[in-house]
Amino acid sequence: MSELASEPTAQAEERRPGALMAAEVAAQPAILAGLVEHRAEIAAVAERVAARRPRFVLLAARGSSDHAALYAKYLVEVLLQLPAGLVSPSTTTLYGAQPDLTDVLWIAVSQSGGSPDLVEATAAAAGRGALTVAVTNTPGSPLNGVAELSVDVRAGKELAVAATKTYTATLLGLYLLVDAIRGGDGAAATDIGALAQSTLDGTVAAADEAAQRYRFVDRMVTTARGYSLASALEAALKLAETSYLSARAYSGADLLHGPVAAVDSETGVLAVTSRGKGGEAMRDVLTVVHDRGADVLAVGSSAADVPAATRLVVAESAEEVAPILEILPIQRLALALSLARAGDPDQPRGLSKVTRTR
Amino acid sequence: MSELASEPTAQAEERRPGALMAAEVAAQPAILAGLVEHRAEIAAVAERVAARRPRFVLLAARGSSDHAALYAKYLVEVLLQLPAGLVSPSTTTLYGAQPDLTDVLWIAVSQSGGSPDLVEATAAAAGRGALTVAVTNTPGSPLNGVAELSVDVRAGKELAVAATKTYTATLLGLYLLVDAIRGGDGAAATDIGALAQSTLDGTVAAADEAAQRYRFVDRMVTTARGYSLASALEAALKLAETSYLSARAYSGADLLHGPVAAVDSETGVLAVTSRGKGGEAMRDVLTVVHDRGADVLAVGSSAADVPAATRLVVAESAEEVAPILEILPIQRLALALSLARAGDPDQPRGLSKVTRTR
Repeated sequence: MSELASEPTAQAEERRPGALMAAEVAAQPAILAGLVEHRAEIAAVAERVAARRPRFVLLAARGSSDHAALYAKYLVEVLLQLPAGLVSPSTTTLYGAQPDLTDVLWIAVSQSGGSPDLVEATAAAAGRGALTVAVTNTPGSPLNGVAELSVDVRAGKELAVAATKTYTATLLGLYLLVDAIRGGDGAAATDIGALAQSTLDGTVAAADEAAQRYRFVDRMVTTARGYSLASALEAALKLAETSYLSARAYSGADLLHGPVAAVDSETGVLAVTSRGKGGEAMRDVLTVVHDRGADVLAVGSSAADVPAATRLVVAESAEEVAPILEILPIQRLALALSLARAGDPDQPRGLSKVTRTR
Repeated sequence: MSELASEPTAQAEERRPGALMAAEVAAQPAILAGLVEHRAEIAAVAERVAARRPRFVLLAARGSSDHAALYAKYLVEVLLQLPAGLVSPSTTTLYGAQPDLTDVLWIAVSQSGGSPDLVEATAAAAGRGALTVAVTNTPGSPLNGVAELSVDVRAGKELAVAATKTYTATLLGLYLLVDAIRGGDGAAATDIGALAQSTLDGTVAAADEAAQRYRFVDRMVTTARGYSLASALEAALKLAETSYLSARAYSGADLLHGPVAAVDSETGVLAVTSRGKGGEAMRDVLTVVHDRGADVLAVGSSAADVPAATRLVVAESAEEVAPILEILPIQRLALALSLARAGDPDQPRGLSKVTRTR
């Protein structure tokens, strides 16, 4: 290496590692409360959707937004009682599929609204009869441009590379949209800002402490059932992209089938478990995992009720909005773990903010 | 530990580790060829499906069958030009969702046909207007009992715990079903038995050698796009359940977005790349991953054309049946890696054959 390599560069300006991510994690209660105040805007979109009486819902997304879309799939199936599926944009963009989408509600989820394959697939869906809705954090994005209707999740510009506030705001936007389509007033989310604040207040110190415990963990499995499966998937992604941890998510049901073979005393298991049907269905899973000697980190409003080495107890809420809260201490854990490993979650190796593939 | 603990037990009978899995991997060419011979049976089912003119397709599965269902989703979207989604059985079994499934084709995929939540969700779907088809390896299973139509994938009883022959036979059954629904005669699969044989003949030695290279690998990422995404997912599961490897699958598109941050020179990247649109779309991904210093193991019919440290070159086929072939050397790799790590893939720790959750 040349001596010149040690000269300061424009990129190397003074900045505390993780400062951006920490600020955006902390900003979420206010952002969530702000979005609830704008729920009438979302209800207006929902009214137009309801008037079209969709019979089938397709959700299109990439990356973190894919987990938001999975959450929305549960909302659609349970609250709207409509069949729903996650689409693979590539069947359109790579293989040129042109299905008849009459009676289909197509919800495209992307914080940036800029992923080219999502834009292309959504434009194609609109051309094939679907009612298209863009759920983004970027009004005026290309995705908003091609969709018939738009929901703005109002998270403000996200500076950190790892998505945090745009993820929770997107979940909330999707909940408010789906609930309003069935004529609801978003009742389960009325106090979501306060619940988010009390969750952060109650878990930040514990999450930072948990990061010390997992400083040297090599292998982590995340797991949940029901609505919270989105939280397990998002947790694995967040840990992978900030802390370079090999983390993998499983539905609790699938975990017991095969992959539990890979769970042993060397494995950290981040289990998301909140009050409600999904959390209840995790009890058997956690008993098995605990009996195998795994180190269980329980996160959620029922975290105190399961066998675990460490717990991050989240404020109690209606089950359908629990994923908005569960992810908060997990984001904080990812941040702290990255720092504990001498990394900087604001400058992960090779991460860019918009998916450019098509 | 007591001296008594070293006494031989009934379970410890003499058996070569991995013998069951090896035999079932090797049996696949004949099984696939046999299923093609019975394609008229599947075409008869397809005719009844086509007569109902379904407008949406829902696929329900668990574990390895989930990857088969994902493959089928691509087939449905591209070959049938119908919107399709993977369902979460838990929205029915945990949350009691009762969507209107008029005009919906519901395909439940399970080698055993015994997963209680799949049986319950399929029975419920039939009661809500869906045309239900069970794709199983177990005629007379509870799943066959509740579904209106059934496809038998004719793989014979699977003795090894890790699914191999039931997985490929299920893929082929799904291809023959979907192709016949659109009036095809399964042309892309006519020679699938011979192609499978030449794939195994050409890759077994290389897969066994690759297992030596990955003897000490700690972290593995698997990746693909398009139809082959199912192969990447199945590869990660197979490596996790036989070799306790922390393997995680990503769509090539998603990998470039965030998780590529976790890919470095310590990472093994198993990339599935075959001739066709999915493989072509992997080129950029593989260039990035290679430039990051990752150790790439390329598997597929275009494996010779990409930057890689190791290659398992699969027989060329139509892209829509490539996943049936790509997984063969991966199964062999999982077997050899388990043995190289002094394990026994026929007796993985804590693995059972039927998902019992609901």
